[in-house]
This record gives sequence, C-alpha cells and structure tokens, in this order.
Amino acid sequence: MQTIYFRDHQKSGDTGYDLYRLLTDLRGQSGVKIVFDKDTYTVTPDRCFERSLNISNHGWNGPKRIAALIEDMTDIELDFSGSTLITPGVITPFAFIRSKGVTVRNVIMENPQTMFLQAKVVSHGDGYVDLLKMQGKEQFRIRHGELLCDYYECLFPCGTHIEYKGDTGEIETGTADNTMGVWIGDCRTEDMGNDILRVHGVKRYPPIGNILIISAARRLGCGFFCEDTTDILCENVTLHSCYGMGILAQTCENITLRSFNVLRHGDQYYTVNADGTHFVNCTGLVTVENSTFEGQLDDALNIHGMYTKIIDKTASEIFVNEVHSQAKGIRIYRAGDRIQVLKPDTLIPYTEKSIKEVEYVNADLVRLVLNESTEDILVGDDIESLTRAADLIFRGNIVRNNRARGMLIATRGKTVIEDCYFHSSGSAILFESNGDYWYESGGVQDVTIRRNNFDGCKHGGWGRAIVDCVPRKATEEGKYFNREIKVLDNTFHMVTDAVAILDNIEHAVFRGNTVTAAEGVSPKVIVRHVGNAEIETDLPIEG
Amino acid sequence: MQTIYFRDHQKSGDTGYDLYRLLTDLRGQSGVKIVFDKDTYTVTPDRCFERSLNISNHGWNGPKRIAALIEDMTDIELDFSGSTLITPGVITPFAFIRSKGVTVRNVIMENPQTMFLQAKVVSHGDGYVDLLKMQGKEQFRIRHGELLCDYYECLFPCGTHIEYKGDTGEIETGTADNTMGVWIGDCRTEDMGNDILRVHGVKRYPPIGNILIISAARRLGCGFFCEDTTDILCENVTLHSCYGMGILAQTCENITLRSFNVLRHGDQYYTVNADGTHFVNCTGLVTVENSTFEGQLDDALNIHGMYTKIIDKTASEIFVNEVHSQAKGIRIYRAGDRIQVLKPDTLIPYTEKSIKEVEYVNADLVRLVLNESTEDILVGDDIESLTRAADLIFRGNIVRNNRARGMLIATRGKTVIEDCYFHSSGSAILFESNGDYWYESGGVQDVTIRRNNFDGCKHGGWGRAIVDCVPRKATEEGKYFNREIKVLDNTFHMVTDAVAILDNIEHAVFRGNTVTAAEGVSPKVIVRHVGNAEIETDLPIEG
Repeated sequence: MQTIYFRDHQKSGDTGYDLYRLLTDLRGQSGVKIVFDKDTYTVTPDRCFERSLNISNHGWNGPKRIAALIEDMTDIELDFSGSTLITPGVITPFAFIRSKGVTVRNVIMENPQTMFLQAKVVSHGDGYVDLLKMQGKEQFRIRHGELLCDYYECLFPCGTHIEYKGDTGEIETGTADNTMGVWIGDCRTEDMGNDILRVHGVKRYPPIGNILIISAARRLGCGFFCEDTTDILCENVTLHSCYGMGILAQTCENITLRSFNVLRHGDQYYTVNADGTHFVNCTGLVTVENSTFEGQLDDALNIHGMYTKIIDKTASEIFVNEVHSQAKGIRIYRAGDRIQVLKPDTLIPYTEKSIKEVEYVNADLVRLVLNESTEDILVGDDIESLTRAADLIFRGNIVRNNRARGMLIATRGKTVIEDCYFHSSGSAILFESNGDYWYESGGVQDVTIRRNNFDGCKHGGWGRAIVDCVPRKATEEGKYFNREIKVLDNTFHMVTDAVAILDNIEHAVFRGNTVTAAEGVSPKVIVRHVGNAEIETDLPIEG
Repeated sequence: MQTIYFRDHQKSGDTGYDLYRLLTDLRGQSGVKIVFDKDTYTVTPDRCFERSLNISNHGWNGPKRIAALIEDMTDIELDFSGSTLITPGVITPFAFIRSKGVTVRNVIMENPQTMFLQAKVVSHGDGYVDLLKMQGKEQFRIRHGELLCDYYECLFPCGTHIEYKGDTGEIETGTADNTMGVWIGDCRTEDMGNDILRVHGVKRYPPIGNILIISAARRLGCGFFCEDTTDILCENVTLHSCYGMGILAQTCENITLRSFNVLRHGDQYYTVNADGTHFVNCTGLVTVENSTFEGQLDDALNIHGMYTKIIDKTASEIFVNEVHSQAKGIRIYRAGDRIQVLKPDTLIPYTEKSIKEVEYVNADLVRLVLNESTEDILVGDDIESLTRAADLIFRGNIVRNNRARGMLIATRGKTVIEDCYFHSSGSAILFESNGDYWYESGGVQDVTIRRNNFDGCKHGGWGRAIVDCVPRKATEEGKYFNREIKVLDNTFHMVTDAVAILDNIEHAVFRGNTVTAAEGVSPKVIVRHVGNAEIETDLPIEG
C-alpha cells in the first residue's frame, strides 16, 4: 500500500480541483492510501468531478458534482485524520463507482446549503403561527404568499416534516408531517421582518419553543454514492447534513459502516434529508455497527431490491419497467442473474427464470432475454432478482429522533439486528414491500431481532407496531411472503399498544422479550397468517 | 445504399420502440436508407432512446429521450414520405451524434405538450384582462394566484412573450415581452371557469381579439440535436412545435437545411420555443435555403462560437470556464485547435495559441494544455476558437412574425445572406457578441447581405436597426472587431428610422440599396468606428 499525503498535492488553491487532479491521476492504480492533515477542507461544485448518475431512491438522474470520486480503482483508502469536509451547494461528497476495496475514514461531513428551513415557534395568533428562522434563510423565499425553496430556475414547494420539542430535541408526541394541521404549501406565509415568518390558516398551534423542520427535501445528491463496488468500508464518519441520504449503495457487494454517524450539529436539529443508510440490490454482507442515526428526514436504514413490472413480452424476451418514481435507470439486472415472477397483490412467486441478455433501453424500460420460455409469464405481473440480495448485520447502533421509521427490511439475505437502541418516532423495524406503488422488494428469509432496547418507539406517527409487518393486499393459503422472523430477548418500553405485528410469515418466533409500558398502555402481540408461530409471552396475543 | 422499409420493422406496437430497435440494430452499419410509409407516427417518451446530452444554448444538461437517434453511423437516410411525427411529452425527435452523412427528409413534426399557453384577449376591466385559453390548457395551473407551468415536481414561472394581432397574425406594433405592462409572474391570475383566466394588476390592455403567447419556455429538448456529425441534410422538414430550438448543431461540419420550415399550424400562432436554427462552433459550410421561419420564440438563425473565461493558469495550462449559463459542458475545444486570447470589453485579440491537450473537468471547467507558453495570457480574459467556425449561406428564406430578431451572426466564416424576405419584429440581422455576459463569439470576417427584402422589420421591440452591429464596451484605435460587412442591393421598407448601424468594422460597404418608408419615418444609416466605409446612399449618414 503506497501512502500519499494530500498536502503534497494541494497545489491549485482549490481543494475540489486538488482532489480531482490527484484521484484522476491515480485512476487505474491499486493499493493507494491518501492521508489528509487534520484540517477543514471546503469543496465547492466549481472545480470538482462531474458524472451523470442515476442514484436509486433519489429521483434526480443526471449530472452530479462529486468531491471525491473513486472510479475503476482497486484498494484505495482515504484517511481524513478527523478533518471536516464542507461541501456547500449541490454536491455529492463521495462516489465509489466500479471499484474494489474502498475505505474512507475519520471525516466529518457538512453541507450548509441544503433545502432545509429550521424555525422555532415563537408565538400564536388567531389562525396563525409565528416562526423564527434559525437555518436555511437564503434558500427560501415567499412568492405570492407561499414559502418556496428557490433553485435552478424552478420553485420547489415545501413541507413541514418534523416537529421537535425545543427542550429535549425529541419529536413532539403524536406528530408526523404537517404539524400545523395543514400543508404549509396551502398556507399564506408572510415575512414579518427580523427573521419572523407568519404562517396563516393553520389548524394546529405547535407549542411555543418547538422547532419545525420545513424542507423542500429534493434528493439532488447524497453523502456517499456507491455503485458496482465491492468491499467498501466507511469508519469514523460523521454526517451533519447533505442532500439526500447519508449513503446510498446500489448493486454493490460487501459494505461495512463502522461508527458511521448521522449526527446533529450545534443548534441544527435536522441532519440528512432522507434515510441515513440505504442499500438497493446489494450482495454479500452489509454490516452497520456502532453507529448513531438521529435527526434524519427518513429511516436509519432501508435495504431492499426492486420489483419491476412486466409491460410486454415475446417468446424469449420480457420488457420490464422500473416503476419506482425515484429509482429509474438503476442497472439491477445482469446476464446470468436469476429472477422470479410474482403477482403484484400477493407478491408470491409462481415461476423462476434466468437472464441471458440485458438491454437498458432507457431509464424506464429494460429488455430481458431469458434462457427459458416466457409462456407462463403474465404481462402486468412483477419480477424480482433472486441473485442480488445481501445479508445484513445491524449491531450496536443508536437510532433516535428521526422522522419516519427506524429500519425498513426487505432483503432475502440473512439478517441480524442486535444490541441496538431505538427511539424512533414511528415503527422501529418495518417489513414492507410493495408490488404496485413503491415497488421495493422483497420478502425476508431469515431475520433475527435480538437484545435490542426499543425505548418509547412510535411516539410520533408512522407505522402500527414497534416491529411491524405490513400486510399484502391478498394472501394465498399455505404460502407466505416472509419465510422466518425471530424476535428474541429484546426490551420494549411501550408508549403505544402493539409490540409486534407478525404477518404473512412461514415461521415466526417471539420469545424472551421484556415488555414494560407507560400508564394506560396495554401492550399486545398480533399474529396473522403465520404458518408456524412460536409465541412465548405473557402479553395478549391477537389474531 | 441498402433500402429498408420501416413497415417491415413495425413489430412491437410501439413506434418509439420500433425505431429504437431498428436504429440500434443498424448501428455500425453504413449506407442505409429507411423509408417510411406516409402515415402519422406517434413516439412517446416511454420506449424510445435515452442519452445524457449537453445541448448548447438550452441549459438543461442531462438525460433526454430521443425518438430517432443516429449515433456512430455513416451514410444513413430517413425518408418519412411526408409523414407526420408526433412526439408528445419531453422528447427530442432527432439526435445525430458522432455520425457522417445523415439525411432526414419529408417529415412534419409536432409536439402537442410543450410549455406554451396561447390565449385570446376577450375583455378588459378595471386593472384586469380576461384571456380565453386556446392551447396549453393541461400544462398550466394557478397556485396561490400565480399562473405556473407544472412539470417534474417543480413549478416554472411564466412570461408573456409575444402578442399577435388576432386578424393578421403579425406581432402587435411596438410590443415585445410583458405586453400587459407587467411581468405576469407578478400578477394575480384567477380562474373564471369556461377557460377564462382573469389577470389582475395589468398596466396595459392588449386590444380585444389579440393573441398572447404565454410560456414557461424551458428548453428541455430540441427538434434536431446534432453533435460531432459531418454532412447533415434536412430537406422538406416542417416543424410545428417542439421543446427548445428547431435545430441545434454543435461542433458539426457541413449542414444543409433545404425547405426546413418552422410553421404555424391550425389556430396555433406560436411554433418552437426558441430559435428556428442555431449553430455553435460548427465548421465547413452551413446552408439554409428555401425555408420559412415563423412564430418561433426567438431568432430564425443564430450562428456563433463560444468565448470561455480564463480563471486560472500555470506555465503550460490554462483553466477556462464555460460561462454561458445555457451552454455548459459543450466540448468546443479539441487537441490541435488554434485559439486566440481577447480582452472581454473590446474582444480584440492580443495573442494566439494552439491546444496540445484538452480535459473536461466538469460542465463548467476545461483544462487546456497549450503548445506555447502562457506567460502573455491574463487570467480574467477570454479565449475563442479560431478553428471551429463555419461559412454560412442563408438564401431564399422567409422570416416573419417571430419574437426577437431575424438572424444573429457571429461566425468567422464567409457569410452570404441573399434573396430572403424578412418581416421580423426586431432587427433583421444582428451582429452581436459578448465577452462578459452571454459569451457568444465572435467577430465576423466576410459578410455579404444582398438582394434581400426587409419589409417593415423592427415593428416590435428588439434591436436598434434593421442591420445592427452592437457596440463593444470599449474599442481600440485602428483595430476592429468585425473585418468586413457588405450590404448590397437590398430593398428596405422602413417603419423605424435606422436602416443600418455599421459599427466596429474594418471594411463596411452599403451600396445599391432601395429604401422606402412609412409616413413620418426618416430612414438613415449610422456609421461608427469603421476603418474603410464605402457608403453609397441618398439617405442621411450619421456618425
């Protein structure tokens, strides 16, 4: 491993260009470690990399500026020595593409120009709330009485996505989106001067001192984008803010995030504008450990594949659409992959095929030539990759004070969630797939949830139970969407009734869990359409 | 030349996919003529080509859907036999990339879903105008009292760009943009039902019966996009509507447009949403003949190079920015090209260099390694390609009833404009370049304007004279931005005073022109900073 010191390459006066130059000149080499002096580095979009990227679940395909691009490289490590990397503007700090063995260590990441407006509730009046702008003053403006985020010659409507208690920083009990009782896009907002916004036409008055996170939340980039890369390690990384998700990895193999922290910073209550971590059709093992996720606009982790919809076929070909509106042009199929065909309502497969040839016509349409006949395949049904699913270990992590859920699990690989602390405002662990709207696949095969502390989860909106399996539209007798889910030796402190909803599982286990409850709360376990249920608990069990 | 009949390839039930399949399967072949039966073909964005394109002067780099993509092909002809090609949605009907010998013939092109709203003035009230929506009903909506165009999760503000007389279809005398005396984005617009929009807060009341062209006018694609392609012929082509320009060709060589018509259709007064034809850093010969251009939102023709701004240098490299906000990432420089360096205010060159190596860092930044020393180059100045400029013949064309000018000429090549009819609302022929805002280059070397009929041009806004040379911010004694412009044997019928402003030219000739004038108009010729002026006229000559 050759060691290079970044200070020897700081020649141009622009960190973005110095990084570009160094990483461009290193392309094709292998076994390089780049060490940065501990410092504050600022990369603006002006002189850095650009690539046209289709970032899954982000929805804005096209040219992206990138601070550090690792492309077609083998065994490269970037050690920032505890430095802060500031990336103001629309920029993806890290992208790993078609590489093998990529490590990033010891870096704090911050983007002061995302599409967030943080505001404190300072007073109420008859039908209005006065808000004091704390962050995001420049990116927002009022136009024809509407608060809008102004970017790129077009105007983005906003939403009120989180309401925090000003003292504890927790999500206000019982709240989800639109906490003023209406969508802020329908309100008339008035600039009262001195950073005060008056929002008229509200139906709920958030307590004075509470903090509202208003956001246009377009996912114009992400913290780390990884594609077709093997053996990724991100260690001692802290993300305070970025466009999109903390890390989005698609069609990658073996990813380890260790002390990968999405953390608030100063008086900023929010962090990244979507999920902390998100894995799409990855393979091998995904490990997330000893990490903290807070303040993000969506879940701490989401792992899934993609269903695609069959829109046409010939004797040997099927034509499928990537239907998820935020995940177009993601190259999830490769020659040699195995697929299964499913009914969109049950997501129960009825035939299995293998891919001979793949042609991406455009970001919506893929042509797949199969090795077998298409005779038994029905146009209108979905397919799912059987080849591209990862194992998951989520261990020793803290998840708290974020919008939406803790985790969304939809991977066919062996999944272990253990020794974590969850204080999520919605469900802590959600098993969700969908074959006719979001199109995120698929049924889990082997999940163990053990020794976690679920502390007051679901105090806000989002979800029905702490561990929640969303039902399918239809089921088939004796067939199950999920194969095995085991909930073992966890601690639950309940502020809502449903501990777990175990639904559409061949083999479900609930055993050794300790459940306490707030006053007036009656914890229960719900079991539906389970082939073999091993439920050992004193709690009431509902069907 | 092998002849293929498209009907033999209409297999999928989707014209977009049939075209995609055929043209994809033909790639790498040469000498192919594809003949279409005369019919109406509709290509939607769903199943057609997609490429990430940087279309110069369009400003929306990124993935584009394309109906017919000719890429890396030699000697291909598409003969549509008089068919109509309808491309609803955001789609570029034709793109020619890295090809040689491309012909498209006998096609009528139409896009019913562009960002136009055509409305007829039906009544006035105190401070308001009532408009009847004629076209573009679906793409527009009122939100918080503002008329907006709603696309792609963001909202585009609109402008009122043309006002037509309802009876003659000519642009209303004296009007340019914002013909209601205010920007419509600042007005409150109310939906009165029955397709009536009431626009409040107007300061001018357009005559009842006049037609307003309201547009969000984002250039999300174009009619024909041509890049790095040699020997293009478009013949008997009619464009009724499209996103962006009729044709945009960048870094192409030899383009012939013969009977290439941008024409109104039915009760639709507008056509394309920008220039009819536009050529950027092309080489060889550009010929436009026997064509009609009307109703477009900008000039009939614009030909120019690009100035780029030097932002940094080393001993052997210069770093330049593509500064034109709508022309980023256009690969105008190639190894071996000659460039000159100029002052942004005078655009007078002070040194010449040649390019050894080109590196496109991102869509803004280009690194050029020079064969010579950079010592005499000043950071902050501009450079211009001397290699990439085309000759131009514009012959036997009709230009009428469009917004803005007739032609913008800024090519170093030999230019002949002859036997044309101009009825443009602004200047007919404008010589404009700019080194610190638009960055379109450059000075003309050899222009002949002869035997044209300039009939009542400049009856609307835009420009100062029928033939107009825009002055530079500064001049240098004895040095001239333009080398030679000759205005010979034309007919001018004047509705405004200035026939020609000949400015900053080494050799200017005005001879043999016949000038008549409307009542109260006093035609004159203006000559400023001309080295050798041969002005033969009875008209007053001003300095």
